[in-house]
Amino acid sequence: MRPTKQILSTILSEVKPLIGQGKVADYIPALAKVPNNKLGIAVYTNDGEVITAGDAEESFSIQSISKALSLTLAMMLYKPEEIWQRVGKEPSGQAFNSLIQLEMEQGIPRNPFINAGAIVVADLLQSRLSAPRQRLLEFVRTLSGDSHIVYDKIVAASEMMHSDRNAAIAYLMRSFGNFDNDVIPVLNNYFHACALKMNCVDLAKTFSYLANKGQSVNTKKQIITPTQTKQLNALLATCGLYDGAGEFAYRVGMPGKSGVGGGIIAIVPGEMTIAVWSPELDKSGNSLAGTRALEMLSQRIGRSIF
Amino acid sequence: MRPTKQILSTILSEVKPLIGQGKVADYIPALAKVPNNKLGIAVYTNDGEVITAGDAEESFSIQSISKALSLTLAMMLYKPEEIWQRVGKEPSGQAFNSLIQLEMEQGIPRNPFINAGAIVVADLLQSRLSAPRQRLLEFVRTLSGDSHIVYDKIVAASEMMHSDRNAAIAYLMRSFGNFDNDVIPVLNNYFHACALKMNCVDLAKTFSYLANKGQSVNTKKQIITPTQTKQLNALLATCGLYDGAGEFAYRVGMPGKSGVGGGIIAIVPGEMTIAVWSPELDKSGNSLAGTRALEMLSQRIGRSIF
Amino acid sequence: MRPTKQILSTILSEVKPLIGQGKVADYIPALAKVPNNKLGIAVYTNDGEVITAGDAEESFSIQSISKALSLTLAMMLYKPEEIWQRVGKEPSGQAFNSLIQLEMEQGIPRNPFINAGAIVVADLLQSRLSAPRQRLLEFVRTLSGDSHIVYDKIVAASEMMHSDRNAAIAYLMRSFGNFDNDVIPVLNNYFHACALKMNCVDLAKTFSYLANKGQSVNTKKQIITPTQTKQLNALLATCGLYDGAGEFAYRVGMPGKSGVGGGIIAIVPGEMTIAVWSPELDKSGNSLAGTRALEMLSQRIGRSIF
Amino acid sequence: MRPTKQILSTILSEVKPLIGQGKVADYIPALAKVPNNKLGIAVYTNDGEVITAGDAEESFSIQSISKALSLTLAMMLYKPEEIWQRVGKEPSGQAFNSLIQLEMEQGIPRNPFINAGAIVVADLLQSRLSAPRQRLLEFVRTLSGDSHIVYDKIVAASEMMHSDRNAAIAYLMRSFGNFDNDVIPVLNNYFHACALKMNCVDLAKTFSYLANKGQSVNTKKQIITPTQTKQLNALLATCGLYDGAGEFAYRVGMPGKSGVGGGIIAIVPGEMTIAVWSPELDKSGNSLAGTRALEMLSQRIGRSIF
Repeated sequence: MRPTKQILSTILSEVKPLIGQGKVADYIPALAKVPNNKLGIAVYTNDGEVITAGDAEESFSIQSISKALSLTLAMMLYKPEEIWQRVGKEPSGQAFNSLIQLEMEQGIPRNPFINAGAIVVADLLQSRLSAPRQRLLEFVRTLSGDSHIVYDKIVAASEMMHSDRNAAIAYLMRSFGNFDNDVIPVLNNYFHACALKMNCVDLAKTFSYLANKGQSVNTKKQIITPTQTKQLNALLATCGLYDGAGEFAYRVGMPGKSGVGGGIIAIVPGEMTIAVWSPELDKSGNSLAGTRALEMLSQRIGRSIF
Repeated sequence: MRPTKQILSTILSEVKPLIGQGKVADYIPALAKVPNNKLGIAVYTNDGEVITAGDAEESFSIQSISKALSLTLAMMLYKPEEIWQRVGKEPSGQAFNSLIQLEMEQGIPRNPFINAGAIVVADLLQSRLSAPRQRLLEFVRTLSGDSHIVYDKIVAASEMMHSDRNAAIAYLMRSFGNFDNDVIPVLNNYFHACALKMNCVDLAKTFSYLANKGQSVNTKKQIITPTQTKQLNALLATCGLYDGAGEFAYRVGMPGKSGVGGGIIAIVPGEMTIAVWSPELDKSGNSLAGTRALEMLSQRIGRSIF
Repeated sequence: MRPTKQILSTILSEVKPLIGQGKVADYIPALAKVPNNKLGIAVYTNDGEVITAGDAEESFSIQSISKALSLTLAMMLYKPEEIWQRVGKEPSGQAFNSLIQLEMEQGIPRNPFINAGAIVVADLLQSRLSAPRQRLLEFVRTLSGDSHIVYDKIVAASEMMHSDRNAAIAYLMRSFGNFDNDVIPVLNNYFHACALKMNCVDLAKTFSYLANKGQSVNTKKQIITPTQTKQLNALLATCGLYDGAGEFAYRVGMPGKSGVGGGIIAIVPGEMTIAVWSPELDKSGNSLAGTRALEMLSQRIGRSIF
Repeated sequence: MRPTKQILSTILSEVKPLIGQGKVADYIPALAKVPNNKLGIAVYTNDGEVITAGDAEESFSIQSISKALSLTLAMMLYKPEEIWQRVGKEPSGQAFNSLIQLEMEQGIPRNPFINAGAIVVADLLQSRLSAPRQRLLEFVRTLSGDSHIVYDKIVAASEMMHSDRNAAIAYLMRSFGNFDNDVIPVLNNYFHACALKMNCVDLAKTFSYLANKGQSVNTKKQIITPTQTKQLNALLATCGLYDGAGEFAYRVGMPGKSGVGGGIIAIVPGEMTIAVWSPELDKSGNSLAGTRALEMLSQRIGRSIF
């Protein structure tokens, strides 16, 4: 069954009662003050249809969803072995900001979606792009067709003021020879990527290449190859949901990437890209109502990768 | 493109040069003496066709592939919450026989496919079946249609003589209250399951329910529900390949389960079940040539879940 | 200043208010039911004087204090390298019953006073003594001059029924080749040693060889050499107080060994042996009031090793 | 027996054959180029006698020996609870520069002699001293009576260029709220302390207060109280030799502190202070020949704390 506005609206009304059972990220004020009752969803089909419900056109901080964008850029700029000798492809089994495994595994992060791995990717971009921040912004503006997308400067500045843990991660990797640039500018770019403000429609359009063998449905441009697309989806499926990837696969069954701003993108290869937003998080740091909405959508339209 | 005998034969001849680069499991003599040049593959399509190449009808020790069978039996006998309060659904990020995470997480194994998790499943089966070993044997004989499948008594006895590590795991879980029966009989059943002797055709037929929404293609019986099937495939995709699940997803892109006997089963939901066998293992403990054969098959026939 | 009955009595009355702030060990009923207000101390000087206060002649379960006795027996039976290739000499920095470090360090326990190390020592005794349990009993009866010392059979049986964690430790070491005998009989001996019932006077007399260059003050027999005595005291000082050895050295400044029965022995080399008993434990598992009493005694008589 | 020049010379000639079996620290060039055959020892008795042998008057980089000096300054400036709420008193059981335990224990280092703990101490000094570097230099010049002691600027600069690991440690503690100042200036002071150039006689005189109840034998000034002295010696005995404290206590039996420059100081409370230097290190990072020399000295003069 195809998703319809009716199905999406019904799902949102059914998951609404979950609001109040999760917890809005509060480690920086700019995130803490987001109203907890925001709820939106957008589906972008491979034939170009946009279907939405709720607050699908209201922007929010995409946070770690940006890690999938940065990795895409790195895959466009580097040969595979240049990337995968510096970051692994395996689930970590530990908290997203842990240094324990990183020390035991000699400064090689487990995958590109935990903080350490994303910081390595930011270091890679820094080495090969003259203006990585501008490049990323153009990338999402083009893919989404939304020229109003901006970095939330307050969020980026706030993150920078709470950057000690990520600085520790970067310095630890540097001590193992797995970090090439100065720490501060790389972290600054990393935090800007996390501070991208986008809405569900933007996100669904932006990531449509992951559902369409690497070709953007919106721009018709080939972003990455079909093989790279399969690889990126595989990484999202096994590592994209922090320490809740197994649970997400079990319940939703789609490659996805979440952010602590409450957004999640999910892919049905060959068919559609989905973005959902609800700020309250479960204990793994994934949107509580957002995950449930995706689980219900998977059941209603009978779509999953499994 | 559909798989053909020609495609399978070509793939086997192309992966053959890998033999000699891996290492046959040698922790028990019965495994160490298996000739390293065995190589077989079988595909069982959802419309009942069997396609094979190489040593597809020669039996081998299925080892950890049995963990997917035991979990299936447990899902048939228990309510979901009865299982998932005792074992998690997340990748472990640690070696399959590690006690470190098990101690830190209070005796709850990360997933049913690491040793600790499979031992919990064996404990569950012990609690509810009068003759779990006989039940499992009937299960695979029926699903495969091969009444000659047996336990390799020498392998089972050998495993039992090298059971100290698994005994440590079981006792540690017992100390946390996550083990209900006597340790020795449960381990004995666990080792017997690992000692099942099956060939690639048997395996492909046995697991066909995972490619067919829970219904065995061979017997037409509904083994588990479509939702349970999706869930089991999700668990296989995120946790089925020891500490190489991410790499396997990245390269092959199918839910799968491997064993140190050199076998791997892989699922293309809605289409087919594949079994491959080559005894030499890579450093993660997965069949080296077997994984490569599945990667090539995925590319040739254009099938993966991503 | 020499310790006097007056000093000891004053100290006991000063530490009494601490009773109620700790917690009696309750993992087995036989320990849980010991009255929390028991409080006793005995000093045995190297010239043979016994000075006591409080419940110094009431027997209690010596628990881990026995680990120092078992190690002494092992030092009498084995060459140093035979012992120290199987167990280390370093503080562990982890809980006394943790398997984490044991797995990471390939089955070699950090020191003989954590559970794993003491179980290795029990395994050593089992290999070389025909009746290790009887031998240990004779050893303490002779050293203390108290022929009424017995094993508390109820405690030993209770421990055996809660032995899963220690069984896990033993099997893990066996899987690394660091355990020679059957697990159950060794654990049974280990638990019997822990279940020795002795009073403070018994303990002070028994351990007098540690204060007297290896010669028992009571029997005049040379138990171990002066060098072995220095070595054993060094191990007690760095590893004898679970994960509170640093704090104990900082406050008390004497080599010592504690047990969860609330007993502690402490050594002033060249001068005296002290035993104290108060069942309530601090968070490290050491007697709360007992530690404080030793700290005060150290200050009053101006004795410590530092 | 009192130490004599004859005894010291004999010991040095006996340990000389060990040179060649260890490894000079080579993580910075300034340390790597120190000749491996340097060997010196100095004893400073509590009645003011200096006894030396070998290269006792040649300066070397004291490295981590400075951690005992910095802690002494902190104990002079802060109340005990102000220090011990920010750093523990227990052996770590892990490498001196590990972040694993630090993350698991919420940014509170195990003790003041691992890197993390010493960096906390440097942060404490930074908060309360206007010129901590100058203060430390005056401190050692006064205590040793040697006004020529300087910081080795090349060593300090080299350390600063290899500071990533320590920066990671500092930022990790900051993320847990256990670091008050800017990271770089604190690390700079920390590295300067490590870069103090002193000889064995300087060191023995400087640390004489630890053997003399807190009063400097050289200046007659009371540096810390007798109780603080006992406490500091206790910390040195349990934590002063990296992950080799247990072995050092077992073999030498004196409170001590080592540095990767190959120096070790050791204390016989009430009697003497000893400094030894030989650049080659054992696998724990302690001077190989230096440790052996102290072990032999302990045996020859019959002195240890146990």
